[in-house]
Amino acid sequence: MALIYRTKTSSPIHEFDLIHALRKQYHLRTASVIRGIGDDAAVITSKAGQWTVLTTDLLTEGVHFDLRTATMADIGFRAAAANLSDIAAMGATPQHLLVSLAIPRTGTNQHVHQLYRGMMAACRPHHVRLIGGDTSASSGEWFLSLTLIGIVPPHTALFRSGAKIGDSLYVTGTIGDALAGLKLLNEPPTRVRRHSRTATLSLRHRRFLIGRHLRPTARVAVGRWLNTHGFATSAIDVSDGLSGDLRHICEESHVGVEVNLSALPLSPACRAYAASRKLDPLNLALTGGEDYELLFTVSPHQRQRLERTALTRGFPLTCIGEIHPYRFGIQALSLQGTRHRLANTSYTHFT
Amino acid sequence: MALIYRTKTSSPIHEFDLIHALRKQYHLRTASVIRGIGDDAAVITSKAGQWTVLTTDLLTEGVHFDLRTATMADIGFRAAAANLSDIAAMGATPQHLLVSLAIPRTGTNQHVHQLYRGMMAACRPHHVRLIGGDTSASSGEWFLSLTLIGIVPPHTALFRSGAKIGDSLYVTGTIGDALAGLKLLNEPPTRVRRHSRTATLSLRHRRFLIGRHLRPTARVAVGRWLNTHGFATSAIDVSDGLSGDLRHICEESHVGVEVNLSALPLSPACRAYAASRKLDPLNLALTGGEDYELLFTVSPHQRQRLERTALTRGFPLTCIGEIHPYRFGIQALSLQGTRHRLANTSYTHFT
Repeated sequence: MALIYRTKTSSPIHEFDLIHALRKQYHLRTASVIRGIGDDAAVITSKAGQWTVLTTDLLTEGVHFDLRTATMADIGFRAAAANLSDIAAMGATPQHLLVSLAIPRTGTNQHVHQLYRGMMAACRPHHVRLIGGDTSASSGEWFLSLTLIGIVPPHTALFRSGAKIGDSLYVTGTIGDALAGLKLLNEPPTRVRRHSRTATLSLRHRRFLIGRHLRPTARVAVGRWLNTHGFATSAIDVSDGLSGDLRHICEESHVGVEVNLSALPLSPACRAYAASRKLDPLNLALTGGEDYELLFTVSPHQRQRLERTALTRGFPLTCIGEIHPYRFGIQALSLQGTRHRLANTSYTHFT
Repeated sequence: MALIYRTKTSSPIHEFDLIHALRKQYHLRTASVIRGIGDDAAVITSKAGQWTVLTTDLLTEGVHFDLRTATMADIGFRAAAANLSDIAAMGATPQHLLVSLAIPRTGTNQHVHQLYRGMMAACRPHHVRLIGGDTSASSGEWFLSLTLIGIVPPHTALFRSGAKIGDSLYVTGTIGDALAGLKLLNEPPTRVRRHSRTATLSLRHRRFLIGRHLRPTARVAVGRWLNTHGFATSAIDVSDGLSGDLRHICEESHVGVEVNLSALPLSPACRAYAASRKLDPLNLALTGGEDYELLFTVSPHQRQRLERTALTRGFPLTCIGEIHPYRFGIQALSLQGTRHRLANTSYTHFT
């Protein structure tokens, strides 16, 4: 399709012009890209023997984002981060990006370019190159689907399977922040006054949490480091919520797990938010998706070396549990020292 | 996201259940797929030195398809064919498929499985394996984005650039059929009676044209053959319409072209349709997109060998023009022997 839209309020969006503009702006000559944007398909090459890692993530307006609370650049950034995080969870190095975009009638050239700016801002630190995609009209909402391609040395990728009984369970950074940020964005506006909701949460905490939702950081360096050093026996990124993602590791590895709730890493901002809204911060941490932290297992004899090296690298890691036999199931050790089965309460957009 | 939708009329669509079902149904153990559906990303491997070819194509409801005139299986089939055609136009062998799907509230499990059945029906003859994807809710329409990965021996891919002055221009099969089929589907229903529109076009022709629109065949074998034998200097698939796709070859190769309109391969069904609707069949051939035939250029000294081998292989090829210098532009030689500049009338979904 050539012409996507002719809008009254802006210049028409012409697919070939857009392709030209994107090629000019984001095309980088590198040895691994034989042919990028502008042919029937992209052609890439990698060193002999390397494994290719591929992931695709889809964001739709009204489900994954709301244009009243996020800019086009935020949306692009978050879409790229979600894909980068999947590559990170495989211990791989992200390299090439394909973008599918459906533009509604209200969309302008400026919207599209802002979206790409956001995507490329997330990709740039990792030297990811835009190599192609498809752009079309949408009769309804914005749709964005990214495919990210990475590489990993052969026989070294991190899978969800591989966790062994006795392994320790770790998570990077803090969890629950992105859900708190989303909830903040969705709160009805209140006038700032003494005792108002907004007043009880500092602007710094508010900004931190919203930033964690709109501009998450994929743990690419940590993933590669875990893989290169052979630290992790299994790994996944926290995208469906800790309780849901734990379940994936347990199912794929055929193991059970005990999660120590008192160990869950919560940010001061998340704690402050939960206190101000009379919520249990542990609930945010267990159910909140899209923190894009890494959840992984480590064998007992590697623990000491992992923690020592993480410290020198400045990687924030927390041990939050231990792998048990499959029949143990998924149990939580509460702050009071009691055990209970952990419900599958991963965050869902629709219930 | 775990639960996508709970609908009143059907069982809920649960993402993890869907992944399990797809993995069970379409998972094939092959040496090139290290990890398929069910991890953070897919992992594939290919023989040392091979080039990886990647394409993505997006279909949105109300733009690329209409559920009143196409089944979910048709939509899946056509989406896969569009991607296969891009891989064919590179002279590559398609291998792996990733699927992004946004499901509206009206979507059921059955719809989703029909869609996959259609996709895999198009992929099966080429032994393409489903290796992953992402499934989500849509607040509006159906949205489908496919990423297809193929391989090609190093330094042999067919590009849009590469056409040389003096090369002959060829096209496979017949063109204009898919547009005629689309127009037929969009005609308001008329009662079948003598002299009615439906009566003047045989059911066989009608079925052929609609089939060409809903279930197009990607020219994968021809593309690979052109590449293996070094026949084509450039290639593209006819997806935007002949006049638009010609323009891509000319721009990328920095050449001009003369198209011999009397040589354009038209099917008897397309001619019959055009006659019954008082349309110029050449217009259908020039503007109609999505025939998914291959358009390619061949150097003069290869022509004879190409045509001889095509005949023995049963590949339908037609020489429709010749490459000229860039300043010549894109000209059409009419049936009357006059020349005129060819307007850029590629088929657009919105004007």
